[in-house]
Amino acid sequence: MSDLLNEFRDYREKMNNKLQETDNKVIKRIMNLDTNAYKDNALDSKTKEMLGLIASMVLRCDDCISYHLEQCHKAGISNEAMYEIFSLANLVGGTIVIPHTRRALEYWEALNQESQ
Amino acid sequence: MSDLLNEFRDYREKMNNKLQETDNKVIKRIMNLDTNAYKDNALDSKTKEMLGLIASMVLRCDDCISYHLEQCHKAGISNEAMYEIFSLANLVGGTIVIPHTRRALEYWEALNQESQ
Amino acid sequence: MSDLLNEFRDYREKMNNKLQETDNKVIKRIMNLDTNAYKDNALDSKTKEMLGLIASMVLRCDDCISYHLEQCHKAGISNEAMYEIFSLANLVGGTIVIPHTRRALEYWEALNQESQ
Amino acid sequence: MSDLLNEFRDYREKMNNKLQETDNKVIKRIMNLDTNAYKDNALDSKTKEMLGLIASMVLRCDDCISYHLEQCHKAGISNEAMYEIFSLANLVGGTIVIPHTRRALEYWEALNQESQ
Amino acid sequence: MSDLLNEFRDYREKMNNKLQETDNKVIKRIMNLDTNAYKDNALDSKTKEMLGLIASMVLRCDDCISYHLEQCHKAGISNEAMYEIFSLANLVGGTIVIPHTRRALEYWEALNQESQ
Amino acid sequence: MSDLLNEFRDYREKMNNKLQETDNKVIKRIMNLDTNAYKDNALDSKTKEMLGLIASMVLRCDDCISYHLEQCHKAGISNEAMYEIFSLANLVGGTIVIPHTRRALEYWEALNQESQ
Repeated sequence: MSDLLNEFRDYREKMNNKLQETDNKVIKRIMNLDTNAYKDNALDSKTKEMLGLIASMVLRCDDCISYHLEQCHKAGISNEAMYEIFSLANLVGGTIVIPHTRRALEYWEALNQESQ
Repeated sequence: MSDLLNEFRDYREKMNNKLQETDNKVIKRIMNLDTNAYKDNALDSKTKEMLGLIASMVLRCDDCISYHLEQCHKAGISNEAMYEIFSLANLVGGTIVIPHTRRALEYWEALNQESQ
Repeated sequence: MSDLLNEFRDYREKMNNKLQETDNKVIKRIMNLDTNAYKDNALDSKTKEMLGLIASMVLRCDDCISYHLEQCHKAGISNEAMYEIFSLANLVGGTIVIPHTRRALEYWEALNQESQ
Repeated sequence: MSDLLNEFRDYREKMNNKLQETDNKVIKRIMNLDTNAYKDNALDSKTKEMLGLIASMVLRCDDCISYHLEQCHKAGISNEAMYEIFSLANLVGGTIVIPHTRRALEYWEALNQESQ
Repeated sequence: MSDLLNEFRDYREKMNNKLQETDNKVIKRIMNLDTNAYKDNALDSKTKEMLGLIASMVLRCDDCISYHLEQCHKAGISNEAMYEIFSLANLVGGTIVIPHTRRALEYWEALNQESQ
Repeated sequence: MSDLLNEFRDYREKMNNKLQETDNKVIKRIMNLDTNAYKDNALDSKTKEMLGLIASMVLRCDDCISYHLEQCHKAGISNEAMYEIFSLANLVGGTIVIPHTRRALEYWEALNQESQ
């Protein structure tokens, strides 16, 4: 399996557990909201993950991007649809988003390879 | 008709025309891309407008939000779906997005009233 | 009473009520967290309001700044302490924060006058 | 004379004086640096004002933009050069900068009219 | 001693020295202000370091966060107080701050281990 | 040759090629605009690269900074002029830009060494 994927997943899981262990109520509630807000409702989960992804891209947070790429991949978003999300993020957020798009594309390709 | 809607639309149209009249090629191409990128393709226009809206919300640009609210309204997005976009914008972008959400909700309600 | 203070307070209250009326669970929980997170705990409420203020200043959200200025004023923060928060916000966030500091100072002076 | 220009200038001057009166050393030093840093040195003042302008545009601070537009106007920057700065700001910063560019163009045109 | 701590400290010190050696007056004054602004005054140094930390967190600058974590640790801030700063940063700045909070917690734990 | 320079250049070229291969029209047009917008026109290419650099610095995008540093270096910008760009970026953008300036200085020095 890809190092790129595993390093991100392992570190994220380890530190999210530590954040839970701080036992700070506000942190726990935010993390809990973060899990629940993307569930099917008036908007389906797939659409919500695309919304989470583009928000992460224009705010230029690589780890947030990686996370939402994983969720979008699980939701079965096609390459063409993904590239359109990339294009809108770069249009709205500007060329400053390009380096994050390079890393996003690398991560997306690793997800594609893993699932073959 | 609502002053809120008209003031935004009139100023936007007047100044976009002036931006075109600068005859700067890069500005014209960006504005042209901005029109074309949201058209139906692998993702439909409705989904793209939602993506444009949440990107504008987390980047906290009121005029961009107003514009995409108009497009989302034309695309027939329901109130419940809109509130879910608002909720994700506030979750990802934080409480710093709340004041922009107050103005977004006011604009959205004006759009609802106009179309009754 | 100052128009500056009243306009902000009235609009904020009116639209926060409307946000509650959307009955969106995630929005309601974020607004609820926003109320509870600033209460006395390991850090006292006064310190937390200063933290909320500087976060709002460097993120350059005028309405968030006005709100936390109100809370800081209620908490009895002195002018000198307030100016030091302003100075750190401008140091960390840069001169781009100056226009927001001008408006923050105007709002702070209105709060001082109101309480005389 | 233009209301747009006068309102900005009067408020800026009034509140900058009040910021000086706070007698906070860090604020005073930052404001002092802000005056001195744009003077001729290895780069001439004209180039520095263009740098200050694009930085303000991509950070989307309307008042900072107005201030640097004034300085660029005094430095004799042509309309064509100004539109190229606008174009780069929109390219790097994205379409989220367009609404600020609309207001920048309006302010620039008011400066042009005032000087005729 | 922790690699995490040493790598950050060594690189920061080496490059700050090089920044001083550029002999650029504005850079030197900003770095000088950065040292002086956090000293005891109307607000004590400990409070100021907390303000510097949350500002760095919502602006999502990992190196700035590491630096202020060091200063907060020296100032004797408790784990519980630190987690409340983390929680407010995530509330105001949104879930986009979570990845930076993961790294902040790792750095904070390294500081705790070093001082045992 | 410097690892710092080569790693950046190789990864950037490899992934830009992959972005082109996505065959997404909007992405291709943005990348095309990005190449053309910095050419000599009313403003010369050298001035435009300085504008691109400071925009990248205040938006705190390390890879964008590295790219524009390369272009500025090719354009023959002196060390003193470069340090003044750094100083303005830190003044406008705040001390939050310092860590990015440390990395920018390291990259700039590598470019200087390479060209000796």
